[in-house]
Amino acid sequence: MNDFIPVFEPLLNGNEKKYLDDCIESGWLGSNGPYVKKLEKDFSDFCGQKYGSCVTNGSAAIDVTLRAMKELYKWEDNSEVIIPSFNIISAAQSCIYNNLKPVFVDAEPITWNIDTKRIEEVITNKTKAIIVVHIYGLPSDLNPIIEIAKKYNLKIIEDAAQAHGQTYNGKKCGSFSDAATFSFFTNKHISCGEGGIVLTSDEELLNKINYFKNLCFSNEKFIHTNLGWNLRMSNLQAAVACAQLEKINKTIEIKKRIGAKYQELLKDIPAKLSCPKTSYAQNHYWIFGIVINDDVKINAKTARQKLLSKNIETRPFFYPMHKQPIFEKLEILDNTERPVSEKLYEKGFYIPTGLNLTDEKLEYITTQIKNLF
Amino acid sequence: MNDFIPVFEPLLNGNEKKYLDDCIESGWLGSNGPYVKKLEKDFSDFCGQKYGSCVTNGSAAIDVTLRAMKELYKWEDNSEVIIPSFNIISAAQSCIYNNLKPVFVDAEPITWNIDTKRIEEVITNKTKAIIVVHIYGLPSDLNPIIEIAKKYNLKIIEDAAQAHGQTYNGKKCGSFSDAATFSFFTNKHISCGEGGIVLTSDEELLNKINYFKNLCFSNEKFIHTNLGWNLRMSNLQAAVACAQLEKINKTIEIKKRIGAKYQELLKDIPAKLSCPKTSYAQNHYWIFGIVINDDVKINAKTARQKLLSKNIETRPFFYPMHKQPIFEKLEILDNTERPVSEKLYEKGFYIPTGLNLTDEKLEYITTQIKNLF
Repeated sequence: MNDFIPVFEPLLNGNEKKYLDDCIESGWLGSNGPYVKKLEKDFSDFCGQKYGSCVTNGSAAIDVTLRAMKELYKWEDNSEVIIPSFNIISAAQSCIYNNLKPVFVDAEPITWNIDTKRIEEVITNKTKAIIVVHIYGLPSDLNPIIEIAKKYNLKIIEDAAQAHGQTYNGKKCGSFSDAATFSFFTNKHISCGEGGIVLTSDEELLNKINYFKNLCFSNEKFIHTNLGWNLRMSNLQAAVACAQLEKINKTIEIKKRIGAKYQELLKDIPAKLSCPKTSYAQNHYWIFGIVINDDVKINAKTARQKLLSKNIETRPFFYPMHKQPIFEKLEILDNTERPVSEKLYEKGFYIPTGLNLTDEKLEYITTQIKNLF
Repeated sequence: MNDFIPVFEPLLNGNEKKYLDDCIESGWLGSNGPYVKKLEKDFSDFCGQKYGSCVTNGSAAIDVTLRAMKELYKWEDNSEVIIPSFNIISAAQSCIYNNLKPVFVDAEPITWNIDTKRIEEVITNKTKAIIVVHIYGLPSDLNPIIEIAKKYNLKIIEDAAQAHGQTYNGKKCGSFSDAATFSFFTNKHISCGEGGIVLTSDEELLNKINYFKNLCFSNEKFIHTNLGWNLRMSNLQAAVACAQLEKINKTIEIKKRIGAKYQELLKDIPAKLSCPKTSYAQNHYWIFGIVINDDVKINAKTARQKLLSKNIETRPFFYPMHKQPIFEKLEILDNTERPVSEKLYEKGFYIPTGLNLTDEKLEYITTQIKNLF
């Protein structure tokens, strides 16, 4: 049997060591360090926004963005924010912490992104923003969302944690919004273990974000007119992220190659695979997903257990936000059905796409998957 | 004139580079990495608690500790937590975020720590905990606090961010409490730019802390029965902190030497200096503080401006919690006078104690300070 194959593996073959050495030699460890500034400049340039603000992680990026927007745009408590139900908990949780109400929209069955046709029906006079999450490496369909946002005067936040370097109609994801949030978690295209960034072209919003992420310190040090958090990123984290940004195109190339191979080798299994492309983008395969067909008796959990017994690590798909026990308890749910997200959780999971994945291992994985059916 | 003298400077002459190289070579960047585990073990051993849980920073350490305690001990909303008024905003802010009420106690005029004689008078039937902050490198007087806590059945949290390796009657600070929080911010004895840890000997509390710091993920990944935060520390941060922990005794020695020299050279200025020792501890001089005498016309702000014009960086003392504009706005303040904290802010500031500070620079600094008067 093969060695254990992790679902993700970073590739740290660039300037990571050199830049870390530089942090130690220069004595710059903290959030005022030069790599933090470099990452803010280089990553915002790369994505096509004017400014960047590094933070501790992708969840923190959403927390501070909503906080800053709520303050700057004077959103009242219980204002509503539209987010995809098929998503990690971070965006919905940020809403709760900011006394905003998350409103969940079902996924679209092919791309697994927010179903843009279902957005307008949940808009009320309390709606203030849409958080667009580019799910699993394929962008959401931004044009209809931008149109809706204009029509109802809503802000757009792009959560592009899963889509570093991805494009929509040739233009970078993260550049279509009032603010874009990214994670540099271990499994992301650009990774420093834990880290995140907010991008925006609005200087006022940037200043608010920088204020709230630094405990609301002001010019009069230690005097506070508001409460924030410490969400500062260290120079060490930024050094590694800078090194990874330099080779992002190579990383994406590897991911696309892995995705294309899986598409080819798994094309005959009774399951839907990650959507390879749409009219506006090619999949970057941040992850490679498999959704087992309805008429096949096994569900994702069983499939994953069987693969684990073959030393193949996998991950479940997101559990829909509109089914989360905590949101039931908080009484923020309605009775709308969102069947696509539910089916994705029940039947979906994803398989190894580590940057060191060899062809041999990939073929072993696909053989084991075929054996499931 | 001398080169600019920063108020803090780290000394990165140990295994920092080696351990960072190891992170890159092994591919371990994230919070599951071996240096995170090592730091949790080594630092809890060092301080005399059973368990450690690494987090993003010292503020986060308090946030997650209060959250975990509130849940575990079933504290009601608006339960009260006693904290020193002379303090950074983190502890008070954590109370607010956890729907707890911070109750502020004035400082003691010699040690600048919480005035233990004033604690009992603020205890009500809603009081649940005391956050003891070891201010500026000298421990709080723990015995009377422990006695009060026993008498009223209160939990003790030690915020030992400013007192790594310090002792109270020969026993390590951080070991006297139900939970102790530490920061590894750039200016701390052990530093990794941004970082923190919670120590406890209560396994149930540890588990709650680990749950809340990791977005309340459970065994059923992506299904949440509660809301947390992402407060995870990366392996990179932990690697540098591990290297610094190895030489903590040397660091403390340097700090004590700097403090002793300042005591000697500044003994005749019309000001109170950091308290060199008490019956229970010697000062570690995390910072070296100066509080200008009342009968001297200049205040801290003027003194600091003059020193900055001589290329000497300083920092103001904490602004008292009971005077913070944000807490006035939140209507959580009472009219009790806390004159010691107020005076400390008005007349107090601290001067360079960087780990690279040469005798020559130290003498230059003391000359410029004497020139103020």
